[in-house]
Amino acid sequence: MPSALPLSAALLSLLTAAPKAQAPVAAPKDPGPSPQVAAQLIGAALSEGRAYARLAELTDGIGPRLSGSEGEKAAVQWAKRSFEADGVKVWLEPVKVPRWVRGEESGRVLASERFREHPLALLALGGSVGTPAEGVTGEVLEVRSLEEVAGLGEKVKGKIVFFNHAMAEAADYGKYAGLRTRGASVAAKSGAVAVLVRSLATASLRSPHTGAMRYDEGVPQIPAAAVSVEDAELLHRLVAGGPVKVELKLGCQTQPDADSFNVVAEVKGREKPKEVVLLGAHLDSWDVGTGAHDDGAGVTMVMETARLLGKLKPAPRRTVRVVLFANEENGLRGGRAYAEAHAAELGTHVAALEMDSGGGRPLGVTFRAGPGGEELVRPWLQPLEALGAGVILAGEAGGADISPLIPARVPFVGVRVDSSRYFDVHHSHADTLDKVNPKDLAQSTAALAWVSYVLAEVPGVLPRPEAPPAAPPTTPKPAAP
Amino acid sequence: MPSALPLSAALLSLLTAAPKAQAPVAAPKDPGPSPQVAAQLIGAALSEGRAYARLAELTDGIGPRLSGSEGEKAAVQWAKRSFEADGVKVWLEPVKVPRWVRGEESGRVLASERFREHPLALLALGGSVGTPAEGVTGEVLEVRSLEEVAGLGEKVKGKIVFFNHAMAEAADYGKYAGLRTRGASVAAKSGAVAVLVRSLATASLRSPHTGAMRYDEGVPQIPAAAVSVEDAELLHRLVAGGPVKVELKLGCQTQPDADSFNVVAEVKGREKPKEVVLLGAHLDSWDVGTGAHDDGAGVTMVMETARLLGKLKPAPRRTVRVVLFANEENGLRGGRAYAEAHAAELGTHVAALEMDSGGGRPLGVTFRAGPGGEELVRPWLQPLEALGAGVILAGEAGGADISPLIPARVPFVGVRVDSSRYFDVHHSHADTLDKVNPKDLAQSTAALAWVSYVLAEVPGVLPRPEAPPAAPPTTPKPAAP
Ligand SMILES: [Zn+2]
Ligand SMILES: [Zn+2]
Repeated sequence: MPSALPLSAALLSLLTAAPKAQAPVAAPKDPGPSPQVAAQLIGAALSEGRAYARLAELTDGIGPRLSGSEGEKAAVQWAKRSFEADGVKVWLEPVKVPRWVRGEESGRVLASERFREHPLALLALGGSVGTPAEGVTGEVLEVRSLEEVAGLGEKVKGKIVFFNHAMAEAADYGKYAGLRTRGASVAAKSGAVAVLVRSLATASLRSPHTGAMRYDEGVPQIPAAAVSVEDAELLHRLVAGGPVKVELKLGCQTQPDADSFNVVAEVKGREKPKEVVLLGAHLDSWDVGTGAHDDGAGVTMVMETARLLGKLKPAPRRTVRVVLFANEENGLRGGRAYAEAHAAELGTHVAALEMDSGGGRPLGVTFRAGPGGEELVRPWLQPLEALGAGVILAGEAGGADISPLIPARVPFVGVRVDSSRYFDVHHSHADTLDKVNPKDLAQSTAALAWVSYVLAEVPGVLPRPEAPPAAPPTTPKPAAP
Repeated sequence: MPSALPLSAALLSLLTAAPKAQAPVAAPKDPGPSPQVAAQLIGAALSEGRAYARLAELTDGIGPRLSGSEGEKAAVQWAKRSFEADGVKVWLEPVKVPRWVRGEESGRVLASERFREHPLALLALGGSVGTPAEGVTGEVLEVRSLEEVAGLGEKVKGKIVFFNHAMAEAADYGKYAGLRTRGASVAAKSGAVAVLVRSLATASLRSPHTGAMRYDEGVPQIPAAAVSVEDAELLHRLVAGGPVKVELKLGCQTQPDADSFNVVAEVKGREKPKEVVLLGAHLDSWDVGTGAHDDGAGVTMVMETARLLGKLKPAPRRTVRVVLFANEENGLRGGRAYAEAHAAELGTHVAALEMDSGGGRPLGVTFRAGPGGEELVRPWLQPLEALGAGVILAGEAGGADISPLIPARVPFVGVRVDSSRYFDVHHSHADTLDKVNPKDLAQSTAALAWVSYVLAEVPGVLPRPEAPPAAPPTTPKPAAP
């Protein structure tokens, strides 16, 4: 039909005219992060299921991976192979790690006139000394804080100090973690023979939660174990009625340091390869459970981000470096080794981000940067809105492994995930693959991939935060190991 | 003031005239259950907290009480003493009970090319034979039903049969309990060397749930254990990828039968002492946890009901007999012994009610009686309305220990409690006092006390249910042990 031609021509002219009408032809302005890349990264993270599949390899295939264990060695090799299979450049950086080994362990409330014997569900704390083979027996002294022990003076002598507390939700972790990490030395200073700590848990089915502890210099090293919430409640009830004696047998011991590695992988920047966006997670786990949430989830999220960014053509403007840290749980040796080995280039670390709060769904983005830093990223949050994470949240970004970068004033960014149920399983036998929701993990991976790309691509860089106010923390306190 | 006298006299006349106007003086009509007693029973149950205090004595003071154990013996004496302290007549009726003893036990998934070794969180099933000291090793064969095993024929030979299932809520318990009780013999018939059963649980933090199993005559007795939900999920994932071998070591054994007792207590009826309202619960528990919900809660509810009814003046019309049964969990010897010993008087057992679904809040009343039985009780449910339990619910009343009374056509009544979270802890280390809400326990005790009184006081008796249709169950299937 001839009438069709004039119409088509008119339409064509209309369509081609529109762009020309908007702006004169000019040198292209720096476009910044590209919306097409958002679609590509988020689409792949949500549809390919690689983070969860990889988490299954790490947890079911390798299992627990405490520093210095065979599991840890296997995990390092697995991570290296996996990056290689993804076509991501990877290398190993040596780290000496502590080697603490759990042995046979048990505890019991000894029978009295008021009650029959009760077994205690417990886990030695990581780093604890063992007991003699016959165990340590003592009367239980229940306290609620480190200060309370100090105030009890002579009463502590010969006692098994029981640190009880009121942890009810994830946000309480920081409030009570000091009882676990410092309780033994504080109690030993007053003559205690052992300590029991109520598990730092938000749910319990008689399931104790371990975690790191450390001994102060010059104080006797006494054994320390976490008891389940149920056993803490039992001790509390029994102690209320009169004297209670407990016997504790721990077969744990510290062996010589072992050789391990930070696994470092990198997607080189196309324009500013020396500017580094660091993405961290820790490859080690406790020896119970399989470290699915802590920190298998973080490991697979940052690995998947590296894989997705590595496929971008062109590559992002800056270098994205993924570090799977060694020994976060009981020593932080990996985080310190990285800061030392890379001291010379920390000035060009433009951002560091650690994923170590489990595999929950993404909630938003956090910062620890100089004034106005958030504004650099805010314009690029729209692609996260459908994931429920397109917001900047209050609270500082951080992470135990990246905390040694604080003196170098490296800006921190966080992709916060829902960790409301994280402490149900954290550091316990129950931290297993089934607890991680594949959908949540994929969504947080998508959010992380996009935020990482934005940090690597955005024209400016985050203002650096102020230097730490007091003496630089040579022994940084882990945020939530 | 003189004027006061005529007014007072008029008032007096008015007051005394009122009753006269309603009915001529006659022999008082049978008043039935009294509302004042409702206030008295419910008020005391809710305000005195005796059921929970007693549950603490039983669980914290005595702890686990598996048939034939020292704990069970202590519980029998405790119960007798407690009834005596309450001024309730009590006696012991001998029962021979099985004596099964758990030993050291462990299991592990053996390493393969696909995965490293995994420990299994497990509990031997009650009644299981042990393994040789070196354990039993075999390839895992995952099945979903008893029928599936039977259909696999030769494939079962030499295998460790793993019964997986899809229990999601409390109502699923009956669907899958047969895998636990009968799985070993069904698998052994086809040549299996051991069985693992997914725990019957509605929540899990790597917490296995034990329970009874029994061997068929003439079939090899193979070891049987429950694995935690997490370990069942792990086995399922691993088996999907290829062969999986498991090693199982169980140190359990069955020793000669032991002497035990049903603890029987009674509040004698004032008018029809031979008519018995039986209230049951079981005093034994598994050897893990302290049997707080199963069935410490039921025990303390019926004990408290006896105490409250024993204080009534006058006593209820009929006799209320409380039976704390021995050996519900792994034999039902107490229930059978009661039915045998009291065979001659079961014709005057006008109702039997068993509390064995935990210490949740009361939901309503159930029946297993002849047609129209509910109508006898319905008029007296109003006092339970404020407890949320003033309704008759669908579903039959029952109970494992009272099931041997079925051939004698004893009517059953139930006070149903909320057991939606019962299987989170049932038969596991986590069935401890902290899981029982004192408020819920008090409310269910109040409901039980009132319903028991109504059954003992109401002018009529429940019509007896039909005789069981087929051969009388000489081995009654427990409802939810
Ligand atoms: Zn961690
Ligand atoms: Zn029971």
